[in-house]
Amino acid sequence: MLFRQNVVVRLWPRVATVSAAVRTLTSRITVRDAVAATSTREDVSVLGWVKNMRKQKELVFIDLNDGSTAARLQVVAPSNLLRGVHLNVGCSVVAKGKIVPVSLASQDVELAASQVQLLGTCDPKKYPFKRGKIHGVEYLRQFPHLRPQTGVFSRVLRLRSAATMAVHRFFQDRGFINFHTPIISSSDCEGAGELFEIRPSQAAEDEKRFFSTDAFLTVSGQLHAEAVTSGMSAVYTFGPTFRAEKSHTKRHLSEFYMVEAETVLHGSGLSELLCLVEDLYKHTLEVLLKDNYDDINYFHETICSDEAKISILNSIERPFARMTYSEAMDELENAASKNSFHTQPQWGDDLQRDHELHLLSVTGQLPVFITDFPAAIKPFYARTLDSDTNIVSSVDLLVPGVGEVVGGSVREERETVLRDRLTRLGLLEKYQWYLDLRRFGTVPHGGFGLGFERLLQAFLGVADIRDVIPFPRYLGSCQM
Amino acid sequence: MLFRQNVVVRLWPRVATVSAAVRTLTSRITVRDAVAATSTREDVSVLGWVKNMRKQKELVFIDLNDGSTAARLQVVAPSNLLRGVHLNVGCSVVAKGKIVPVSLASQDVELAASQVQLLGTCDPKKYPFKRGKIHGVEYLRQFPHLRPQTGVFSRVLRLRSAATMAVHRFFQDRGFINFHTPIISSSDCEGAGELFEIRPSQAAEDEKRFFSTDAFLTVSGQLHAEAVTSGMSAVYTFGPTFRAEKSHTKRHLSEFYMVEAETVLHGSGLSELLCLVEDLYKHTLEVLLKDNYDDINYFHETICSDEAKISILNSIERPFARMTYSEAMDELENAASKNSFHTQPQWGDDLQRDHELHLLSVTGQLPVFITDFPAAIKPFYARTLDSDTNIVSSVDLLVPGVGEVVGGSVREERETVLRDRLTRLGLLEKYQWYLDLRRFGTVPHGGFGLGFERLLQAFLGVADIRDVIPFPRYLGSCQM
Repeated sequence: MLFRQNVVVRLWPRVATVSAAVRTLTSRITVRDAVAATSTREDVSVLGWVKNMRKQKELVFIDLNDGSTAARLQVVAPSNLLRGVHLNVGCSVVAKGKIVPVSLASQDVELAASQVQLLGTCDPKKYPFKRGKIHGVEYLRQFPHLRPQTGVFSRVLRLRSAATMAVHRFFQDRGFINFHTPIISSSDCEGAGELFEIRPSQAAEDEKRFFSTDAFLTVSGQLHAEAVTSGMSAVYTFGPTFRAEKSHTKRHLSEFYMVEAETVLHGSGLSELLCLVEDLYKHTLEVLLKDNYDDINYFHETICSDEAKISILNSIERPFARMTYSEAMDELENAASKNSFHTQPQWGDDLQRDHELHLLSVTGQLPVFITDFPAAIKPFYARTLDSDTNIVSSVDLLVPGVGEVVGGSVREERETVLRDRLTRLGLLEKYQWYLDLRRFGTVPHGGFGLGFERLLQAFLGVADIRDVIPFPRYLGSCQM
Repeated sequence: MLFRQNVVVRLWPRVATVSAAVRTLTSRITVRDAVAATSTREDVSVLGWVKNMRKQKELVFIDLNDGSTAARLQVVAPSNLLRGVHLNVGCSVVAKGKIVPVSLASQDVELAASQVQLLGTCDPKKYPFKRGKIHGVEYLRQFPHLRPQTGVFSRVLRLRSAATMAVHRFFQDRGFINFHTPIISSSDCEGAGELFEIRPSQAAEDEKRFFSTDAFLTVSGQLHAEAVTSGMSAVYTFGPTFRAEKSHTKRHLSEFYMVEAETVLHGSGLSELLCLVEDLYKHTLEVLLKDNYDDINYFHETICSDEAKISILNSIERPFARMTYSEAMDELENAASKNSFHTQPQWGDDLQRDHELHLLSVTGQLPVFITDFPAAIKPFYARTLDSDTNIVSSVDLLVPGVGEVVGGSVREERETVLRDRLTRLGLLEKYQWYLDLRRFGTVPHGGFGLGFERLLQAFLGVADIRDVIPFPRYLGSCQM
């Protein structure tokens, strides 16, 4: 078929060239590029927000930031360029001129401006962030729409982005296929009362069942990940998960991000999963320390507790500690005589918060894998040990200051065992598809889920989970 | 603080070393690595599923795949290794032996097996996928949990994963920050009747308002992206969005993925966005053709229509066509005398499906940007032209076979104009936060949303959107 060059159709030159031309014409650069310059650059243009400023008789000094880096570019402009212009912290400007090297302790370059254009004003009386003031995280949380304009939260956003990419690269380099688990799910057995239900907003009563079945927001993509693993061998997903938890803690959100990986296990079982988790954890932290040192170091130097600092150092320098649930219980029961635990530790019960804290003090604030839990306190899909069917091959990773960051297990791959278990739970019909994965070419496999916000909390030493996600959702709050 | 080397804490050697050791001991490799071998490799072990097999008197030939590649590894085993073992298509096995080069048209290497272990059986009478048969996509859709085990769907999954990474790399290389828009949102004005509503599943009547406000599944992260852009300059998000559309088409899902980008615009306005979209589109397609040629070529050679093929070729080789809405309407009105459009084209109305098809035939199946729409048919946030306030600076990208793949606009950055518009719409109170972005350091900015599944449809020539997403959700269906 020939291309009909009709009246209204215009052909433009190859787009990459156009983009390059646009960029060259405007000489537009980011603050990040500007402050990284090592020699004079003529005719550049920088768009950003005023973070600070001071006036001398002849000169005005403006600190400019655009979110591309934590650094500020000092713009030096002759006062007459800004005559009659009311510049305040928060205003947006375009500054044009040349980047010149300077010999100052605080900076290597500055922008000698030949033009400063005010784009957007900012009334200092109404703007919630005040000049020269570092506001607390609680205060910032009141302004989720403006928080990205602050130094501290823009660091969080850059670190989140970098950590997200580090996670993707980690799995891609290891041959894991990324896929998207469904957000709307008809599975409801795992989260019980803590699910969100979905229906069309303006539905008449008889249209409620839009999907011809009850529909919920996913609490985990694991079962779906197992289905994909049954053809693809190694997969991961990185997406939102949900809990309708009616509690306020510094470690829970109604909407949070999980990295979930699932892989066939080729002989080595749970220990292979532990290696994968530990590699992922260390890899991601190392990437942030290498590529975003300035951003992450800010948190370590300002808000990080001593405990968190030790944990971070330990995370990089030492292999994680490992103990079985039974060993953990022995330790807790021994310690119970000296400690006053809120709940008495007892084999068969879940670990409580103060139990976790004690175990982490025992490791010297080193993250610790707890393995081999009682089957009774873990979900139906966990694989029982061949040597003891009361124990399942599962793992929790506890991290100082945050608690459980990862939960995982080898999955029950034997059809008959899984069928018995589903039958006992009355789930056989609903999970026929899950059983099918064991009927048609079953393989030993396992996986884990990692709470992404908790990981960031651990890496940054940020106490409240609402301060590491752009728009936190929790009981009583869904702003914007 | 010293590390207390307490009773129950074991220190393990540095984990990377352990992983490496595990891998070396088992010599476990993927089918992808196996078929890429260029010389003999001793003592390897491959886990996979039987895709085909044939028996000779002395030898058994098994085609093995593990999802890491579309290729199959031929395993050659002496018959006595498999005596008494019932191998069928769909069974999972571990084959051990050595990879040896062979001179065959169909393959470069094979696995000379010294051991074949059956892991999971597969009853050929019950397994829905039959030996040697290529099932149609409609048939496969009945088995979302088993679909990843088929050749065609595993190609889709690999391409989806590769395209996801290509999108991330595209933006990261250009300094865009990745962030997560909220899935649960209190905004409800954009999608009107097509929203999903959320509430806790087992809530009593008085607990319905979990978030102290009505809560919905997001239809777009754009407004949130604008907030983040107001501090970070250039951001993107890649996540699920939702529509409670009560219709069945081959281009709509209730849950689908959107790539949304938002950036400050530094002079060049809408044309900068068009360049960004076209670069992204071409970059992603080029990555798939370069890195996943075998997978994508399969679709081009089997199911792709001639029209889709031309579109794909055009997409790579030519700059996209561009026309304004008014130019498009002129063309349509001229053509209306010769064509019988379902709806008569008229300036001020939305483009209908057959209008889009006509415009794409005019471009010779080249993707086309339609720009500068009437303000009345675009949302409140679109920027009006300085030269004509009835026109907004917005764009749709139409692609052959799929229709609208991208929608975007420059955003109204002027406080007074936006305030008037919100007031007229009765949205001022609800969108006070959105107006704040214009009160405090507003900047010219714009962005777009790209439908990820439609992009894949366009690249692969897949007619039905349900065949390019792992677990499709649509009216009447929410399997698993």
